[in-house]
Amino acid sequence: MSRLTIALDIMGGDHGPPVILSAAKQAIQTLPDVQFILCGREEIISPALEDLTDDQRQRVVVQHCEQSVEMGEAPTSALRNKKQSSMRKMLELVEAGEAHACVSAGNTGALLTLAFYVLKTLPGIDRPALVSDMPTASHHRVFLLDLGANVNCTSEILFQYGVMGSVLAEQISGIQQPRVALLNVGEEDIKGNAQVKYADQLFRNARGLNYIGYVEGDDIFTDNADVVVTDGFTGNIALKSCEGLAKLVINEVKRQSQESFFSRLMARIALPLLKTVYNRVNPDQYNGASLLGLRGIVIKSHGNASADAFYYAILQAKQEAEMNVPEKIKSKIETVLLEQL
Amino acid sequence: MSRLTIALDIMGGDHGPPVILSAAKQAIQTLPDVQFILCGREEIISPALEDLTDDQRQRVVVQHCEQSVEMGEAPTSALRNKKQSSMRKMLELVEAGEAHACVSAGNTGALLTLAFYVLKTLPGIDRPALVSDMPTASHHRVFLLDLGANVNCTSEILFQYGVMGSVLAEQISGIQQPRVALLNVGEEDIKGNAQVKYADQLFRNARGLNYIGYVEGDDIFTDNADVVVTDGFTGNIALKSCEGLAKLVINEVKRQSQESFFSRLMARIALPLLKTVYNRVNPDQYNGASLLGLRGIVIKSHGNASADAFYYAILQAKQEAEMNVPEKIKSKIETVLLEQL
Repeated sequence: MSRLTIALDIMGGDHGPPVILSAAKQAIQTLPDVQFILCGREEIISPALEDLTDDQRQRVVVQHCEQSVEMGEAPTSALRNKKQSSMRKMLELVEAGEAHACVSAGNTGALLTLAFYVLKTLPGIDRPALVSDMPTASHHRVFLLDLGANVNCTSEILFQYGVMGSVLAEQISGIQQPRVALLNVGEEDIKGNAQVKYADQLFRNARGLNYIGYVEGDDIFTDNADVVVTDGFTGNIALKSCEGLAKLVINEVKRQSQESFFSRLMARIALPLLKTVYNRVNPDQYNGASLLGLRGIVIKSHGNASADAFYYAILQAKQEAEMNVPEKIKSKIETVLLEQL
Repeated sequence: MSRLTIALDIMGGDHGPPVILSAAKQAIQTLPDVQFILCGREEIISPALEDLTDDQRQRVVVQHCEQSVEMGEAPTSALRNKKQSSMRKMLELVEAGEAHACVSAGNTGALLTLAFYVLKTLPGIDRPALVSDMPTASHHRVFLLDLGANVNCTSEILFQYGVMGSVLAEQISGIQQPRVALLNVGEEDIKGNAQVKYADQLFRNARGLNYIGYVEGDDIFTDNADVVVTDGFTGNIALKSCEGLAKLVINEVKRQSQESFFSRLMARIALPLLKTVYNRVNPDQYNGASLLGLRGIVIKSHGNASADAFYYAILQAKQEAEMNVPEKIKSKIETVLLEQL
């Protein structure tokens, strides 16, 4: 495997293979240095590749898979009954070293379970985390984790998330000494639950991390931190709440636009502007989320992802592979843990 | 105390007494059936009342208080050292039956601590909750609790929150059999942490509540539930995240408006529309939050509240007093607990 190779789950996502294949072809056409392994039903994939050039076609391997994980399928069912699925195959290719990274827009719970089972976590990491970057006021990006991989987080796991997020911010955003913060209900030392308070101690005692203390929910969108750490329960609900609010704002503007001729005119002018803003503040939809802490690179694209969004997730996979993020996390966690001894 | 009486903490809030006094005077002038007890420094309050009519002045009692709780003061310090504060006095008036309700825009942590200490919780309620109503797509309101009163919630406390929220939705929004939901990371039974799963069992076993199961973060803003229950850690972070996003959207539109003459024009037209939307989706700023579960009515107005926002919080206090919300909660929790036996 000399060339950078990315495995794609063609069968996942709400819109099915056509959207994923469209993104895959865009990637094949625009990333001449990358080889792709397309996992899924051969009879669906091959016809879609006919208009590729010979040169492009040479960088593509079609890996036929009999099974698909359904979007609503229970993770345990996917683990037990879908050993021949495109999602599992994609992960096995990474595990076997045949691909450097993989991307799926499929069932999130199943992907988390299969990835954890197939790839295992890095030494020193107890649980993987889902991380995505959010926009901030000053056009930096802040990495928020965990977005729902793990709803029961110990303080140690929160600490590991901080280390992983710091590596991602450094490698992907090129930030020197990324500012790592813990999400809390107040900035004072006395606030927060037991896990957060003890995690704060772990961060304060660790060397080699630029820990800046607590931040509050609204700080996710300011420029106060580069990495914001929270448990998967809170992180998922914060992210989904913001999605819900963004949808409500768009719908409210649309609704108000019905009220009079003048407001119709206003809304016609406001909506394109709002949509630009919305695209920027809806990272879950437009960026992929990285599944960090595993012995391999897994990018989760939104189930509802458009071809553009899935293409963007492929670019993220490429970038993480080029920076060798799992190796950097392994090395960072070793350093931080050794420094603590 | 035949007339409905509301005690106000004149000294609290980021903008100080002038804004609170302005709201208080508006309330005195527009609510002829209500008597007000204004707690704070007499030399600040009395001069502001000079332009009231004799009739209006007769419905006002100035309760001089030597001390104020500072906005950044630790709750324990407020409890120990501020026995003569306007915030504490306001709560003591409710406790003594001299006021039916009280309103403060002061230090949230101190208000929670003092209210819990002075008023105590109702029988069957372990901890009070902060609750506010959020907008939904269909212009209903959904009551979200807890917004941060209590970061360590057992399943039993989550269940009590459901009962309290149900009473508030029924009494304040006039909803028959309000739909009560638990906030979770997924709608499937297998998802969520241990507290949420066991709380789900408690709700399922309870009679006299219209429990509809789990909802996700984005459902806060849809019309899927009338009451959404979560722990104070998650609720606070969800609310603050949404505040942060709302601010970001406004600022982003403002920023984009600088880019060209055309976008300046667009933004001039879009901003008033957006501001209307923003006011609707920023409940923390524009509505007061009720502190539920105590033996008295306490409304927390936003620290940054304008006179309009504080006036609105006074109206909420009046409505809760007229509906006798604490008595209704007491009665509902007795019914639900008895039904469980």
